[in-house]
Amino acid sequence: MDLHRELHIIGERIDAVLDRRLPPAHTFPQRLHQAMRYAVLNGGKRIRPALMYATARAVDVPWDAIDGAAAAVELIHDYSLIHDDLPAMDDDALRRGRPTCHRAFDEATAILAGDAIQALAFYVLAHDATISTEPAVRLQLIETLGRAAGSRGMAGGQAMDLASVGRSLSLAELEDMHIHKTGLLIRSTVLMAAQLQPALGETERDRLDHFAKCIGLAFQIRDDILDVEGHTDTLGKPQGSDQAQDKPTFPSVVGMAESKARALTLHREALRSLEFLDERADLLRALADYIVNRPK
Amino acid sequence: MDLHRELHIIGERIDAVLDRRLPPAHTFPQRLHQAMRYAVLNGGKRIRPALMYATARAVDVPWDAIDGAAAAVELIHDYSLIHDDLPAMDDDALRRGRPTCHRAFDEATAILAGDAIQALAFYVLAHDATISTEPAVRLQLIETLGRAAGSRGMAGGQAMDLASVGRSLSLAELEDMHIHKTGLLIRSTVLMAAQLQPALGETERDRLDHFAKCIGLAFQIRDDILDVEGHTDTLGKPQGSDQAQDKPTFPSVVGMAESKARALTLHREALRSLEFLDERADLLRALADYIVNRPK
Repeated sequence: MDLHRELHIIGERIDAVLDRRLPPAHTFPQRLHQAMRYAVLNGGKRIRPALMYATARAVDVPWDAIDGAAAAVELIHDYSLIHDDLPAMDDDALRRGRPTCHRAFDEATAILAGDAIQALAFYVLAHDATISTEPAVRLQLIETLGRAAGSRGMAGGQAMDLASVGRSLSLAELEDMHIHKTGLLIRSTVLMAAQLQPALGETERDRLDHFAKCIGLAFQIRDDILDVEGHTDTLGKPQGSDQAQDKPTFPSVVGMAESKARALTLHREALRSLEFLDERADLLRALADYIVNRPK
Repeated sequence: MDLHRELHIIGERIDAVLDRRLPPAHTFPQRLHQAMRYAVLNGGKRIRPALMYATARAVDVPWDAIDGAAAAVELIHDYSLIHDDLPAMDDDALRRGRPTCHRAFDEATAILAGDAIQALAFYVLAHDATISTEPAVRLQLIETLGRAAGSRGMAGGQAMDLASVGRSLSLAELEDMHIHKTGLLIRSTVLMAAQLQPALGETERDRLDHFAKCIGLAFQIRDDILDVEGHTDTLGKPQGSDQAQDKPTFPSVVGMAESKARALTLHREALRSLEFLDERADLLRALADYIVNRPK
C-alpha cells in the first residue's frame, strides 16, 4: 500500500472532476467564477474525497460513481473554509499558503463564491446520473449531505466554535463542537459511499459509520496537536493560530499527552470497526493511520 | 377573486410550514437557530410561495405537495437577503422594518444562519416525501433550485449587482443582472410547481415559463419604480436606497415613463401566456396584476 501514490492519484482525479463541475473562469460572471475556482482548486489534501474513494473500494462501489459525490462533499468543505476565513469569522489571511479568498478577491465576492459553491454541491448530486441511476439513492445522498452541512452539522459547529473563543470548555463540550464542525461532514463521506452499495447490511453500515466517527474526531485532535507542534510552512496557516485566537483545543483542555493518547485510542477503535472487511479496505486503513500520524 | 384574502391564507400556511421545518429556537446551537428563525419568520410578503401555490392551483397540483417546495424556495430567498444585507454587500440596517439579521445578532451568526438556511432548503426537498413520492421528481426540483440559486442564477446576479455600483449599464445589461438576481428564482417557483404535474405537455410548460420570465422582470422594474416613488414605511427599507448607493435602476437607465410602459408590456405578455388555462389560473393572474401594480 503506497499511500502517497494513492493520494496523488485521488488528488489528480478529484481535481479533474471539480474542474469539470466548476463554471469556466471566462464565463459570466467571470470574477465570481474565478473566485470559486481559486478557492476550490487550491492544492488541498482532499482528505474527504480520499475517504470516499477508499470506502468505495472497500465496499466494492466503482470509482466512477464516487466522482460526483466526492466533488459535492469537497465543495461543501471548500465553501465552509471561504466563509470561516472571513473577517467576521476567523479573519485569516492565509489558507494553504496562499491569500484567503476574501484577500485575493474581496469580501463580498468571497461570501457569494461560498454561497454559489454550496448550491453547486447539491446541484451536482441532483444532476449527475453517473453517481447512481437510482434517483432514490441520489436523494438519500442529498439528505445526508444537507443534514451534515446545516445548523445541526457543520454550520452549527462553526457557530459553537465562534462562541467558544475565550471560554473554557469541558472535554465533552469540546468534542461536541468538533463532532459538529468537522465530524459530521467526515462521517457523511463514508456514509455516502456506503449508501451507493445497496448490498451492505445494517450492521456493516453501522460499523463503517463508527469508523468514520472515530476518524473524524481523531482528525481534529491531530489538527489541534499540529497547531501547537507544527510549522507554518506545512500547515499553510500560521502555527499557533488557535492559541493566538484563544480557542479551546484538545491540548489546552486535557493536555498534550492525553490528547495524543486519545487520538491513538480512537485510531485503534476505528481499525477494529473495519475488521469485517478484507484487504480491499487497506486504503481506508492506511488513511486512518495517516490521519492520526500525519507529520508536522 | 379576493387576492388579499388568498395572500393572507397562503402567508399563514407557508409560515406554519417554515416554522415546522426550521429547528426549534431552544435546540442547540440556540443562537444560530434563533437567527435562522428571526430571518425567515419575518412577516415577508411570501410572493414566491404565492406564485407556487397559484401555479399549483392552475395546473391541478394539490397544495400539500407544494408546501415543501415552497418552503425550499422561500428559504433560498431568505438566506440571500441575510447575506445581501451584510456590511460587505449592501450594508443595510433595516429589512421589513426590523434590524437586519447581522444587526440583531452579529455578522458571523448572520453568515452562518444564511449558510445553514441554504442547506436546509435542499435538505427539505430531499427529505420530504409529501412533495412527491417519485424520487426522480424531487431530484428535478433540487436540480432546478440548485441552478437558480447558484453562480449562473441568484448568486451570480448579486455579484453583477455589486459590480454595477457607480457604473452606467445599458438596458440589456441591467435586464441581464435582474434576470439572474431575482428572475431565475421567481422562474423556478413556477417551473417547480409545473414539474409536480406530470400531465403537463412541453408547450404548456414553456408558456408557464414564459409567464414567469415576464413576471420576474416586471417585479424588478416595479421594485425600482417603488424605490423612487415609494415610502420607507411601506418598503421596509429607506426609500431611495438604490439611488443613495448609486445603483443603476430601470428609471435611471431608461426613465420613469419608459419603465412603467415596460412593466405594463411585460404584464400583458405574461397574461397572454396564461390564455390556455381556465379560471383555476385566476389567482395566478391576480398575482401578476399585483406584482405590476402594487402600491407605494
